[in-house]
Amino acid sequence: MKFIHISDLHLGKQLHGYSLIEDQKHVLRQIIAEMEKEEPDGLLIAGDVYDKAVPSAEAVGLLDDFLTEVTVRCPNTEVYLIGGNHDGPRRLEFAGRILEKHRLHLAGSAPDREHPDIVCHRLADEFGEVNIYLLPFLRASHVRELFPEQDILTCQDAYKALIEREKIDPEKRNVLVAHQFFTYGANGPVRCESESFSAGGLDAADVRTIFGGEEALFDYVALGHLHAPQSVGRKYIRYSGSPLKYSVSESGQRKSMTVVELGEKGNVALREIPFLPLRDVRLLEGTLARLTDPATVKNGNAEDYVSVILTDEEELYDPRSALEQCYPNLLEWRVENSRTRHAVEDMVLPDMNLSPIELFEEFYRMMQGCGLSEEEEAYLRDVFDAVEEKEN
Amino acid sequence: MKFIHISDLHLGKQLHGYSLIEDQKHVLRQIIAEMEKEEPDGLLIAGDVYDKAVPSAEAVGLLDDFLTEVTVRCPNTEVYLIGGNHDGPRRLEFAGRILEKHRLHLAGSAPDREHPDIVCHRLADEFGEVNIYLLPFLRASHVRELFPEQDILTCQDAYKALIEREKIDPEKRNVLVAHQFFTYGANGPVRCESESFSAGGLDAADVRTIFGGEEALFDYVALGHLHAPQSVGRKYIRYSGSPLKYSVSESGQRKSMTVVELGEKGNVALREIPFLPLRDVRLLEGTLARLTDPATVKNGNAEDYVSVILTDEEELYDPRSALEQCYPNLLEWRVENSRTRHAVEDMVLPDMNLSPIELFEEFYRMMQGCGLSEEEEAYLRDVFDAVEEKEN
Repeated sequence: MKFIHISDLHLGKQLHGYSLIEDQKHVLRQIIAEMEKEEPDGLLIAGDVYDKAVPSAEAVGLLDDFLTEVTVRCPNTEVYLIGGNHDGPRRLEFAGRILEKHRLHLAGSAPDREHPDIVCHRLADEFGEVNIYLLPFLRASHVRELFPEQDILTCQDAYKALIEREKIDPEKRNVLVAHQFFTYGANGPVRCESESFSAGGLDAADVRTIFGGEEALFDYVALGHLHAPQSVGRKYIRYSGSPLKYSVSESGQRKSMTVVELGEKGNVALREIPFLPLRDVRLLEGTLARLTDPATVKNGNAEDYVSVILTDEEELYDPRSALEQCYPNLLEWRVENSRTRHAVEDMVLPDMNLSPIELFEEFYRMMQGCGLSEEEEAYLRDVFDAVEEKEN
Repeated sequence: MKFIHISDLHLGKQLHGYSLIEDQKHVLRQIIAEMEKEEPDGLLIAGDVYDKAVPSAEAVGLLDDFLTEVTVRCPNTEVYLIGGNHDGPRRLEFAGRILEKHRLHLAGSAPDREHPDIVCHRLADEFGEVNIYLLPFLRASHVRELFPEQDILTCQDAYKALIEREKIDPEKRNVLVAHQFFTYGANGPVRCESESFSAGGLDAADVRTIFGGEEALFDYVALGHLHAPQSVGRKYIRYSGSPLKYSVSESGQRKSMTVVELGEKGNVALREIPFLPLRDVRLLEGTLARLTDPATVKNGNAEDYVSVILTDEEELYDPRSALEQCYPNLLEWRVENSRTRHAVEDMVLPDMNLSPIELFEEFYRMMQGCGLSEEEEAYLRDVFDAVEEKEN
């Protein structure tokens, strides 16, 4: 059984004020072209379909066109789409019960009181059944209501409780589609700026705890949330990454969709199909003279989105105009030379790898001379949960 | 052939800060119940499905539930839904090409360059074909682009041009579903506060000009935009009105859905099915003592939404609390007695029946001592069009 796994489309997203609609149309076309070639049994879209809970009309049109075209051009592919933290759950499910009949399975909302179970679909091939579990982005505070007898404090607790209750048969072939921040022990994943920061810290869930110890519950875990394609601890637990570079910090990444082939139980093969963007996101560093030299410009696609670091030591006259003449999609520019470096060294910056809650704890320790009590920490977690929820 | 005609659902609308979701659920249930009884061939929803171009998630859920239930419980009914001035055209059409296969025909956008023709569906019965034309809310300034050789200044011009181009066969049975402000000569319709004001004035279209002179083009014109059920000049050109009273000015209206039965060509029968709201909107007038008298309160549903005019001559102590104790869904209250009446008589109020453009003209005349030139008026119309469009 074959799947194509994508995630984090962020339809409607802008990059430094530039609309990416044409870039997104381009990669969506590529996805359909690859699907026509590969003829997968399922397309797994692991959340953050839209960039905003209330997407623009243009973004709604883009998803509509994409899904409609998939139903027409890929008549043997089921589409499994879940909501991410950027998506509005109820909006994403519009007409879902009808679209179900057209092989479009939309799961916007994580389990709640009305629908407490993980949504599960079944496909079959010559090796038997495959169960496909859909678990949209969730918050510990919501899942807590479903397990009043348990102590659900973190996302990890929430995942553990939900998955244990499903009594998933490890003898069967099982696939999970989820949108969350997963770690493997102390090994943090590759992060980048365009992901929501609050996803880290206490929201992280350890895959070893959740997906079974020695015995794996799932044959493939299709994840969304992180924008770099990567596996988490085990090969088959994987973020496909976003189809486009959604921040300059992603400029070094190679974006891809993941093709997953399940043979008989225990037999999983993965490969990547690189995305071919309309315009790349590049980081350029050098003197203004070198970067605006026609030879340098011709070296790449001048239409790419570029972030520029100028290393000139002398004052420059209107470098933005000079850069924009060569690179019409200039995202940003700054000067880094011996003077600016000194200025930076004098500043003490907070560690930006910390989650908001960890930053607060650091601040509290600085002010009070001691850390937070367990009770205070739990209370704080609820506050941050509520704030984040309101923002989303 | 039988149709049920409704319009102006305004899903998600609030009334003086009260959510009407439960009231809307209630009337939607009634619509489905009547459809099960009547078994119409078509449900015509003539625009303003949502209250806002970006509806709340709750409103999206309400429409989703309604349409899904219709497809399940009314398997022989086609649904024809058009966008009104309150709806976001592209959002309303999400998944439309797929839903089409489930008898849900969603027309969000008026004809434009990409789709210049009026959407038309066909049904048939023992008397032959019926053409059902769907014409969502339109602006003259948009339609103008489609007819560069014509002088499209008003909505009336736009309608005339679009309908003439369709070459509608008056020998056939034709139905039009539209959302606009129509008049019959000088006879203005029944207006109310919850309709958009700018709909009037130059945006009004005369049904005599549009729908053929002596010879009628359409057997039934299902209109939306005005909230009072009413025919416009001819019986078969009809606003169904909104299912609920969406402003206090509608408190005297009797809301209904219209049942339309087309026999052979030229044979049309209409009847109304009254809506039975969960809570009514009522205007109460009297002294505080009388209105809070248990006998008065028991006279109606105390849960109704009420607007109160107190006629007491003496000062009252905290009348709001006294009223709210009897009427928990108090919308507003004010005092009208001999003192307040004198105060009002001293003020000169602008004529609120004028459209914004007419108000501007009056102001211009006052300031300049002369009216607007034709050119100035055309320019102004474009400005108001653009402003209104931005607001919607």
